[in-house]
Amino acid sequence: MIKIIKHPVRDSWESLFRPAQIEKSGLEEKVRHILNRVRSEGDSALLDYSEKYDGVRPESLIVSYEEIREAEKFVPDDLKRAISMAKENIEIFHRAQITDEPVIETTPGVKCWRKSIPVEKAGIYIPGGTAPLFSTVLMLALPATIAGCREIVMCTPPDKNGRVNPLILYAASITGVTRIYMTGGAQAVAAMAFGTESVPGVDKIFGPGNQYVTKAKEMIQMYGIPVDMPAGPSELLVIADKTAVPEFVAADLLSQAEHGPDSQVFLMSDDEEMINRVLYEIEKQIHTLPRMSTALEALENSALILFDSMIDCIEFSNLYAPEHLIIATTEPSSVAAGVINAGSVFLGNYSCESAGDYATGTNHTLPTNGYARNYSGVSVESFMKKITFQEVTQEGIKNIGPAVELMADAEMLAGHRNAVAVRLKSLRNE
Amino acid sequence: MIKIIKHPVRDSWESLFRPAQIEKSGLEEKVRHILNRVRSEGDSALLDYSEKYDGVRPESLIVSYEEIREAEKFVPDDLKRAISMAKENIEIFHRAQITDEPVIETTPGVKCWRKSIPVEKAGIYIPGGTAPLFSTVLMLALPATIAGCREIVMCTPPDKNGRVNPLILYAASITGVTRIYMTGGAQAVAAMAFGTESVPGVDKIFGPGNQYVTKAKEMIQMYGIPVDMPAGPSELLVIADKTAVPEFVAADLLSQAEHGPDSQVFLMSDDEEMINRVLYEIEKQIHTLPRMSTALEALENSALILFDSMIDCIEFSNLYAPEHLIIATTEPSSVAAGVINAGSVFLGNYSCESAGDYATGTNHTLPTNGYARNYSGVSVESFMKKITFQEVTQEGIKNIGPAVELMADAEMLAGHRNAVAVRLKSLRNE
Repeated sequence: MIKIIKHPVRDSWESLFRPAQIEKSGLEEKVRHILNRVRSEGDSALLDYSEKYDGVRPESLIVSYEEIREAEKFVPDDLKRAISMAKENIEIFHRAQITDEPVIETTPGVKCWRKSIPVEKAGIYIPGGTAPLFSTVLMLALPATIAGCREIVMCTPPDKNGRVNPLILYAASITGVTRIYMTGGAQAVAAMAFGTESVPGVDKIFGPGNQYVTKAKEMIQMYGIPVDMPAGPSELLVIADKTAVPEFVAADLLSQAEHGPDSQVFLMSDDEEMINRVLYEIEKQIHTLPRMSTALEALENSALILFDSMIDCIEFSNLYAPEHLIIATTEPSSVAAGVINAGSVFLGNYSCESAGDYATGTNHTLPTNGYARNYSGVSVESFMKKITFQEVTQEGIKNIGPAVELMADAEMLAGHRNAVAVRLKSLRNE
Repeated sequence: MIKIIKHPVRDSWESLFRPAQIEKSGLEEKVRHILNRVRSEGDSALLDYSEKYDGVRPESLIVSYEEIREAEKFVPDDLKRAISMAKENIEIFHRAQITDEPVIETTPGVKCWRKSIPVEKAGIYIPGGTAPLFSTVLMLALPATIAGCREIVMCTPPDKNGRVNPLILYAASITGVTRIYMTGGAQAVAAMAFGTESVPGVDKIFGPGNQYVTKAKEMIQMYGIPVDMPAGPSELLVIADKTAVPEFVAADLLSQAEHGPDSQVFLMSDDEEMINRVLYEIEKQIHTLPRMSTALEALENSALILFDSMIDCIEFSNLYAPEHLIIATTEPSSVAAGVINAGSVFLGNYSCESAGDYATGTNHTLPTNGYARNYSGVSVESFMKKITFQEVTQEGIKNIGPAVELMADAEMLAGHRNAVAVRLKSLRNE
């Protein structure tokens, strides 16, 4: 069960952070072998791996339009409406991320600007398994579509019957995914990185996965294919004062704990009674969860921590850089103002993490494992790159040219100076 | 000398692209050894490597304030004024990249927004060697300062006398660099990644370098330290019609060719006379360059290509994804509208690349090697991450809660549903 820690000294904080993850032995060699085989053998390697790992050799790697159309029938109407609402909120929030940038005249005759352009082909990986992560389809395909990617390729493993969960197919069909392939694991990442006869190579790869997928995403960066972000187990940190609702806080901690045995959750509070009451609620609620054993394992890595002050809570949180941060205090925005490292922040008693996981409109693909210090979550920008432009007129080159000549000289780049000199000379001769 | 190619068939285009780079044999093992040694031995490893590679064991790794103050005396006043102008333009363009994002109400009672926060500590690497790349100090330290990084750590190798070029120190002193260390190569990257007794570990590492530096930057990403972008040799592609000025185009191609023997330059035109005249100008101008032998080597990888139409020129360019693209045509903006892959684009006869290298205001740290397909150049955002926030009121959770419950159920995450359910229940009971 989760432990209670009181007034930990600052030097001990980091010892509470993320237990070291144990990598499967030989993982890197195994994944390297998969990458190389897919690169050289293409589709036939994908089919072999499917037979080996998914227990089925699909007749076709690409999911047919018929299967996609059929899938819709398996989605109940109320769930369709729920997904449609989530989709709309995600679209509203992400569309606002598309902004026009102004043209800046830095010196008379020198205009500079930037233009955002989508990457042409985005690759999305959606894990298989019992729980169909259709919400992740929304969170990745919608920003890609809003960015304007020409192709949105999705890979997901088939089940034992050679099929993809209908919820995944339905979500893909309403979010702009252009092609769906039945292939999973490291081999799917390899297929999207290198391209095969069926699967097109993409410009960037997104999405969660197991250790094989994660390692493959890490390794294909060496081939120049960027990925959304480094992966790690999911995390939640709650900062609560005495005005929080223990039942809510406990439910939030448990919602994160059920994700996986390596999840980590923290409650920090300046109120000892709050901590005791949350503990009581956790013990009460955990028995109702189908994934109780997973949650129990996760709670072993976790803690309820009593601090002297809110200042300490915020400092701990910034040092930890949580993926999710709930602030359940009287004035959440004043606490939020102190947050410098976090993936996504939830303010007030009614902003539960699971609302953000599905439907507030923010993206749920977030930096874990402390990467919130130097990475952002997925956004429309994740599917775009920015090109800079400049237009220098005759007046402009007269204004900045002599300075460029001096600097090029100082860097001993005579050719750089000359490119300006020939232009200034021609203007003097006019 | 540079070759002329006429009407190449589409299938042959890619064979003209970037010759394969040859990696020094054993590079990865050597760099791994350096990373490990710096990680375990800290400063003493840095000093040993300096003795070995820089030919000097500096008395102190940190550059003293006195040295920095002294440096200013070695910078001529006219160069100071030139640097000051470049600095101002870079600041004007980069400051405009800081924008406030609106709060978006996605559903009544559900507000979402993003906030940009600087990474705390930025690390900047500046190579040594004969040419002092002070312009790169401006291009990296100014955006970091504008982003608001708390620490901007700069590493650069000492010369044989244990000193840093005064231009580098001067540029650092006027751009907000907070600490300067005399250490170079892969060991400098390791120091900024892991931290040593003297050098603080940073959140992200920027800057150019030789094969050792590049490989070290590639490898430290495995430890979760992001870098600005993957590196490669510098490139320029010029699209010119008959209205271009051959003397200018030749000077531009040569300014890029002098960078290094592995640089690559292309001219594409729909006008055969333009190609012949540019070739003539190249042959004329190249003899004036102190770095002629470097430029000659680079021209061996390069080509002047005659295409049937501007459309083909643009298509070739987008496929190649050049670091720098000059458009010297009658209507450069109509050609620019078709550009989807490029680092930085220069419009018109007076927009030479070297102007952008120093002083237009755009950043000169750009994606090479085809990475312009999926990476942006350095900007203020490179030194920041974005945190999402959401605030859900009682009304908000009533609006989106039931949909979240349905979706959590469909993903078999009962704990996620429960976090919403306890809130909805409490509101019904009120």
